[in-house]
Amino acid sequence: MALKAEIVSIGSELTSGWSLDTNAPWLSRALGELGIAAAWHATIGDDMADHVAAFRIAAERADLVLTTGGLGPTQDDLVREALAKTAGVGLREDAESLAAIEALFARRHRAMSPRNRLQALLPEGAEALPNPVGTAPGVWMTIGRAVFAAMPGVPNEMTRMFAEQVVPRLRQRHWVERVIVHRKIALFGKGESDVEADALDLTARGRVPEVGITASQATISFRIKGEGLTQEAAWAQTEETARTIRDRFGPLVLGEGAVDVAEALVEQLKRTGATLATAESCTGGLIAHMITAIPGVSPYYPGGVVSYANQAKTDMLGVPAELIRAHGAVSAEVAAAMASGARERFGADVAISATGVAGPDGGTAEKPVGLVHLGLATADGVQTRRLEIGPEQPRDIIQRRSAKQAMNWVRVTLLERPDREASR
Amino acid sequence: MALKAEIVSIGSELTSGWSLDTNAPWLSRALGELGIAAAWHATIGDDMADHVAAFRIAAERADLVLTTGGLGPTQDDLVREALAKTAGVGLREDAESLAAIEALFARRHRAMSPRNRLQALLPEGAEALPNPVGTAPGVWMTIGRAVFAAMPGVPNEMTRMFAEQVVPRLRQRHWVERVIVHRKIALFGKGESDVEADALDLTARGRVPEVGITASQATISFRIKGEGLTQEAAWAQTEETARTIRDRFGPLVLGEGAVDVAEALVEQLKRTGATLATAESCTGGLIAHMITAIPGVSPYYPGGVVSYANQAKTDMLGVPAELIRAHGAVSAEVAAAMASGARERFGADVAISATGVAGPDGGTAEKPVGLVHLGLATADGVQTRRLEIGPEQPRDIIQRRSAKQAMNWVRVTLLERPDREASR
Repeated sequence: MALKAEIVSIGSELTSGWSLDTNAPWLSRALGELGIAAAWHATIGDDMADHVAAFRIAAERADLVLTTGGLGPTQDDLVREALAKTAGVGLREDAESLAAIEALFARRHRAMSPRNRLQALLPEGAEALPNPVGTAPGVWMTIGRAVFAAMPGVPNEMTRMFAEQVVPRLRQRHWVERVIVHRKIALFGKGESDVEADALDLTARGRVPEVGITASQATISFRIKGEGLTQEAAWAQTEETARTIRDRFGPLVLGEGAVDVAEALVEQLKRTGATLATAESCTGGLIAHMITAIPGVSPYYPGGVVSYANQAKTDMLGVPAELIRAHGAVSAEVAAAMASGARERFGADVAISATGVAGPDGGTAEKPVGLVHLGLATADGVQTRRLEIGPEQPRDIIQRRSAKQAMNWVRVTLLERPDREASR
Repeated sequence: MALKAEIVSIGSELTSGWSLDTNAPWLSRALGELGIAAAWHATIGDDMADHVAAFRIAAERADLVLTTGGLGPTQDDLVREALAKTAGVGLREDAESLAAIEALFARRHRAMSPRNRLQALLPEGAEALPNPVGTAPGVWMTIGRAVFAAMPGVPNEMTRMFAEQVVPRLRQRHWVERVIVHRKIALFGKGESDVEADALDLTARGRVPEVGITASQATISFRIKGEGLTQEAAWAQTEETARTIRDRFGPLVLGEGAVDVAEALVEQLKRTGATLATAESCTGGLIAHMITAIPGVSPYYPGGVVSYANQAKTDMLGVPAELIRAHGAVSAEVAAAMASGARERFGADVAISATGVAGPDGGTAEKPVGLVHLGLATADGVQTRRLEIGPEQPRDIIQRRSAKQAMNWVRVTLLERPDREASR
């Protein structure tokens, strides 16, 4: 049975465009993982005629209708009444829902307004969907050929009600016969087309499990789709493919899930026990910020210098003024000196530096916008790398790519080192 | 005449939830500014029956139907055919559209695929909407009571076609009788409820022009809605209210539009010609990053130190080790020493510092998560401020709020200084 679902998002703040509806995409993806296609999304404002019209249309064409919003206590909240009108039934007060709302107010030590009592109303023949984190219970009822599940618009109330109340009822009806899981493995350090060329066997059409590739901000992600009768079976189906990707792409692999370069770098710092210092010019503190956004990094990150002015490079990192005069601030020589200086002054095992032209101004024919030199200093000496990010890129992209390339260079360097325990 | 519009977003990547539809909210806001309410949004996948059904529903209830997507050259692109089916007419090839598509391919030195020729097809009786930046022309036609404008899904093609092709046609029909403008004035440095209490006369219901208040990440925005027959008249209606807000809230005002604290600070650096250095512990480079994200700041920002470790505070900023031992790294004394040290070592006019507990670990009863000390050093000496952001806040909020408070303190301090020209 190919079930079709409709999602109805309710609220004039959505039809006016002033709020972005994240509930409908979330529910679509969640339904997709259960093997149910969301064929239609409809969005309506706080108008009774529009509610009833939309519900009638949905009741005719869909098997399952999920609505979000319109269950609050105000006069703008019309879903309970509109469901009753669409079904041609009356409203009754649900004693359990009323008790739950009263209990919530008591727990929060707040007086309950008479309007909140309206939230306990249910169309005749409907079932309440308990809401443990808010005052609005949901509604579960059949109208026409469709089952309706009306949920609150507050995202955390909605997602919890969907998982705890709606999904079990779909299973009970045997509407969920299989489970789909998506696993994501993130890679960094090669272009999308290069990665794709090395993965043609994995991404071939008709392969089981299905593998897709997406790229976002220079991070490439493999998405493996596993299917099975249970969560465990769906997961098991992905295991071998996940292992193949890890083995084949080795040092490019950042990890599983939405992991980014900074997290993967901090993982390596923790694993090896190495300490890192930063010396930033064009990235202007972005590397430091991305590293220190991660909790628990302080034992591994003594700190860094943002040496935006040449004088600061000399005073704070010991870059010789003659070196800057001879080669310019944007040069491999200065990148190397910045890294060495930072490593020494912060007493770190490793130091990374970045100096370049972030734009939009300041580029020359010889040193265009997007030219960045990185320096990496370790106990073994100092190396440099030259990046050309492209003069057409905006400042934030140039800063972000340079920062990620710099962090990734440190990460890959640390990959070769033993665990901290082993090295003692 | 209260016109009602429907927006139909087309594409299975939308119904599946894997892409977020930004076109519908954009069009809703754009229509709102023209005085036309978008009463319905519908989203459908790449299915012919769903197209025709959705177009029939829209043709019955709406005056204006804007569709986005489904105009490409692939088999999934069904809008042209679906419009013809809904209207009960055939398709014809539009010579001008074909010439425009061929010219685009010639300009890009690329061979045109036979499928692209299909993009020149139009339902009988329809008018093509030229697309200067893509291959897909739009479609303008009447079906039932509604006028349909079918536009491409690529946002920059769509927004340009809407402004250049759709809006003039709406004006021609006298459907746009008034223009609505929204002006935004951003404030920082006080809580939303405090600002609200001082603006009750402005936000009173029924006031003309209407004023709303919103808060996002500690920045408060006044939104003034002006209406008039022309853009100029709508703008003029907002002028006095904008002036009142600026006068009343003085130093709290960051500026007009989506301006943030960092931009407003850099404005003041440029105006006064002052230079700024940073000394960051708990904010970990975020202040430096936010400042250097703004182009053209280099003459005013020599640099900063991220002194995460105590040793780095001593070595790089000259904070006496005894001071850290006596008061702890998170203290007003250390914040003051960090700021003084940064001002001196970077040779800056002003220096700002931040040291605190960003969490989630590391808090104590005496110094809980969210406690942050700021230091501000100028030629007049050094001052400190204590922030308590709240132990329940996540790390990124504590870092972000501290950084903004720090930058705002510098901004307000500079407000009192004369223009750089005047000070010479």
